[in-house]
Amino acid sequence: MQRAAALVRRGCGPRTPSSWGRSQSSAAAEASAVLKVRPERSRRERILTLESMNPQVKAVEYAVRGPIVLKAGEIELELQRGIKKPFTEVIRANIGDAQAMGQQPITFLRQVMALCTYPNLLDSPSFPEDAKKRARRILQACGGNSLGSYSASQGVNCIREDVAAYITRRDGGVPADPDNIYLTTGASDGISTILKILVSGGGKSRTGVMIPIPQYPLYSAVISELDAIQVNYYLDEENCWALNVNELRRAVQEAKDHCDPKVLCIINPGNPTGQVQSRKCIEDVIHFAWEEKLFLLADEVYQDNVYSPDCRFHSFKKVLYEMGPEYSSNVELASFHSTSKGYMGECGYRGGYMEVINLHPEIKGQLVKLLSVRLCPPVSGQAAMDIVVNPPVAGEESFEQFSREKESVLGNLAKKAKLTEDLFNQVPGIHCNPLQGAMYAFPRIFIPAKAVEAAQAHQMAPDMFYCMKLLEETGICVVPGSGFGQREGTYHFRMTILPPVEKLKTVLQKVKDFHINFLEKYA
Amino acid sequence: MQRAAALVRRGCGPRTPSSWGRSQSSAAAEASAVLKVRPERSRRERILTLESMNPQVKAVEYAVRGPIVLKAGEIELELQRGIKKPFTEVIRANIGDAQAMGQQPITFLRQVMALCTYPNLLDSPSFPEDAKKRARRILQACGGNSLGSYSASQGVNCIREDVAAYITRRDGGVPADPDNIYLTTGASDGISTILKILVSGGGKSRTGVMIPIPQYPLYSAVISELDAIQVNYYLDEENCWALNVNELRRAVQEAKDHCDPKVLCIINPGNPTGQVQSRKCIEDVIHFAWEEKLFLLADEVYQDNVYSPDCRFHSFKKVLYEMGPEYSSNVELASFHSTSKGYMGECGYRGGYMEVINLHPEIKGQLVKLLSVRLCPPVSGQAAMDIVVNPPVAGEESFEQFSREKESVLGNLAKKAKLTEDLFNQVPGIHCNPLQGAMYAFPRIFIPAKAVEAAQAHQMAPDMFYCMKLLEETGICVVPGSGFGQREGTYHFRMTILPPVEKLKTVLQKVKDFHINFLEKYA
Repeated sequence: MQRAAALVRRGCGPRTPSSWGRSQSSAAAEASAVLKVRPERSRRERILTLESMNPQVKAVEYAVRGPIVLKAGEIELELQRGIKKPFTEVIRANIGDAQAMGQQPITFLRQVMALCTYPNLLDSPSFPEDAKKRARRILQACGGNSLGSYSASQGVNCIREDVAAYITRRDGGVPADPDNIYLTTGASDGISTILKILVSGGGKSRTGVMIPIPQYPLYSAVISELDAIQVNYYLDEENCWALNVNELRRAVQEAKDHCDPKVLCIINPGNPTGQVQSRKCIEDVIHFAWEEKLFLLADEVYQDNVYSPDCRFHSFKKVLYEMGPEYSSNVELASFHSTSKGYMGECGYRGGYMEVINLHPEIKGQLVKLLSVRLCPPVSGQAAMDIVVNPPVAGEESFEQFSREKESVLGNLAKKAKLTEDLFNQVPGIHCNPLQGAMYAFPRIFIPAKAVEAAQAHQMAPDMFYCMKLLEETGICVVPGSGFGQREGTYHFRMTILPPVEKLKTVLQKVKDFHINFLEKYA
Repeated sequence: MQRAAALVRRGCGPRTPSSWGRSQSSAAAEASAVLKVRPERSRRERILTLESMNPQVKAVEYAVRGPIVLKAGEIELELQRGIKKPFTEVIRANIGDAQAMGQQPITFLRQVMALCTYPNLLDSPSFPEDAKKRARRILQACGGNSLGSYSASQGVNCIREDVAAYITRRDGGVPADPDNIYLTTGASDGISTILKILVSGGGKSRTGVMIPIPQYPLYSAVISELDAIQVNYYLDEENCWALNVNELRRAVQEAKDHCDPKVLCIINPGNPTGQVQSRKCIEDVIHFAWEEKLFLLADEVYQDNVYSPDCRFHSFKKVLYEMGPEYSSNVELASFHSTSKGYMGECGYRGGYMEVINLHPEIKGQLVKLLSVRLCPPVSGQAAMDIVVNPPVAGEESFEQFSREKESVLGNLAKKAKLTEDLFNQVPGIHCNPLQGAMYAFPRIFIPAKAVEAAQAHQMAPDMFYCMKLLEETGICVVPGSGFGQREGTYHFRMTILPPVEKLKTVLQKVKDFHINFLEKYA
């Protein structure tokens, strides 16, 4: 009875156009009659629907955890339920998640973290003195000597000092100021925070954000959330995914017709493309940013992941300073690093930092204000960041074990990068540029016309169709190139090289077999 | 020379209106002449300035870490430098940061966290078996059995199950579905995420978000960031800060003239106001939300912090279900909890969860997509959340110690709540409602006309002026009521009751002395 009365009242609700009560009033009467047997019919329309939700959020896409990964989850459940498949496990090669792929944490980092978490262990003889020293220093800088207190919104002071010291060492003495360091919840948080501050204007004055294609889809997602204008510049696949400044020029000129290009995002080493930028190229980009008055975002989270003997990581900060004061005192730059990549692979702690150069002092105030709304980044992630930038040094008790573990991870990654490139390039219809750095292969795949038609019949992008088939037939989960962007008519996928060597070999062999079958099937 | 050439080129830049080169061309020539002695003159205008930045971010205010807290930091530095003050330390009573105030972490929680962090400890006899059992269970649910892997964007499965089981117990058997649980980076993250999805429309159709006044300023900050419309409803100070549904009616009716009120935010127990809503009041609010088709956000992070013997915490979820299917299958609700408050006070781990009720299945997909852009909440924070919802139970090894620690924290808080109320009400010109729950006093203070004038001369809100003086004269840092909102002509401040009892007594005595002096000075 209460329910029926409610149904009547519902018709008098104030927001009628979308209300179930009026727009389907005959259905309402019908539903009312069957309420007792079909209680679910008593549902009225939801307030929050695809139609009423924030359209900018609706437009967000994030392929790295998109439909293919949801499908992978479904298949895993089916396997658990005992449903037979042509494989026994799903291999999640869609994401750069080192420890999920079996990489062991760096012992020293976890020792310091455990000591910080449970300070009673500072009395335990099982922990090395250098780890205890690090933990004591971090705890002394925390409120109440505890990881459980909020930190300053910008991050724990002594950790910001350690980050600055690390950057100074890394950049051969170019000074870094702890006041310019902001600890973040992973690099993603830093990138979206600075973009949030940067975006403004309406119509043709709306902020344009230049991003590489292929890109890491955090960028397109945040641009969409912020209703900014995405300005694509294409990396040169024929030239090992190099960044060509002429292409930046083309992109910015065309963009000026419909927006105000104000930000240039660079990912170096590249994700998903794995290229490592030359020093000359970085100089050109900085000069271009200076010329075009663009705020530079340098995503440098793979700075420790350089494998090609011909390549070296050069930070934008260092090159900027070496170009002289006209640049180093004018170009606005934010660069990002993370605990998630490198050889530590501590994704789950969500640690990261951002260094800003030439940020207007008033904007620094705005940045701290904005960060303070979320109080602070996870203090455990901050502590993890501290160990990434402040690992054991020669002469310290833990140095030898640390070095061994570090070299093992990085040595294996270099081997796997070469192995992946070589194996992919043996497959007809697959071309893979050298994996100079980062953690991914982004091979180009030939998809026959018949497969393209079949994909269209399924209302799928051809490379999504390919990756779905790969997942269904082999259990290997990779991300279609369309999730990162690619030149029209070309197809790719991104696969992480993180599985252990033997497993990676199996994965590559399976991809090869699948690909050859696929070509035959759709020939 | 390079610099001089650059100055010339600068004049040809494409974004001239705001460029230093043209708008100040005579100054440019002058600067060029003195470049060698005054290199800082070579600076050109910044791209990112207060004028060019995102105006919605510029409009954000967050008083809890605002100007008064910056001032507190400056004073601390002065004390460190040996500058004499009428006090020897700054007491940061501006924020509910239990461990920074000396509260010890709950041993069991930290033991589980340490075991998860450094699983070698699972072999150590120094850790209790129940803690090891919890740690093993969490690790088994993590990729690669490690806190260092990304989790699912919605959170680790078994932790979501534990949260659902906790809610079911808390709500006397009302079922909770792990699929409706989203782990978050503190409660703030959940609140801003769901608001981000909810806000849409332009002009008079822009989403209105109803918030209590006084409010916790996360709400106004996120509303500003999202360019939504803030719709204030006033809590009834004369009636222990009760929420009156007639006031909700007034607010929503007035708001309909200029926006589309779609969301109703409730904070229970209240922050900064400390009231605990009666069951009847919650029923009224739910009925109102049902009637007005409002999406309910229930901020219930202080659910464990109820001190008044006459009050009990009732969750919105439970009351919703008890009101019958017309409500329980129609009213859309998101409720929030956190590791930061309660008796654990683990703010630094940034753990939290959100439970959604009646969320449209398509919107659940959108929510996961949006969360996946930031990959996952910190896994260490998720593990902390697990212990908050799944503490030791009777019969387990750690139960006794855990119970002792928990009762000690909550018992002390109840004592301090009463003490604070009593002491404030002994001061002429201060009135303090009972602190029924949460962690703050929000006393009303009388500010004499002369002090209001003095504040205006300093271009400060009168209560900001009062709090600044309090800080400068006593070292006690509290937040002016204007940072939370208050009825015009009334003044308040928020002070946490977290300092240890003896220290709190000193703080209250100092505030009393200060207030009496202040009244005399501005009489």
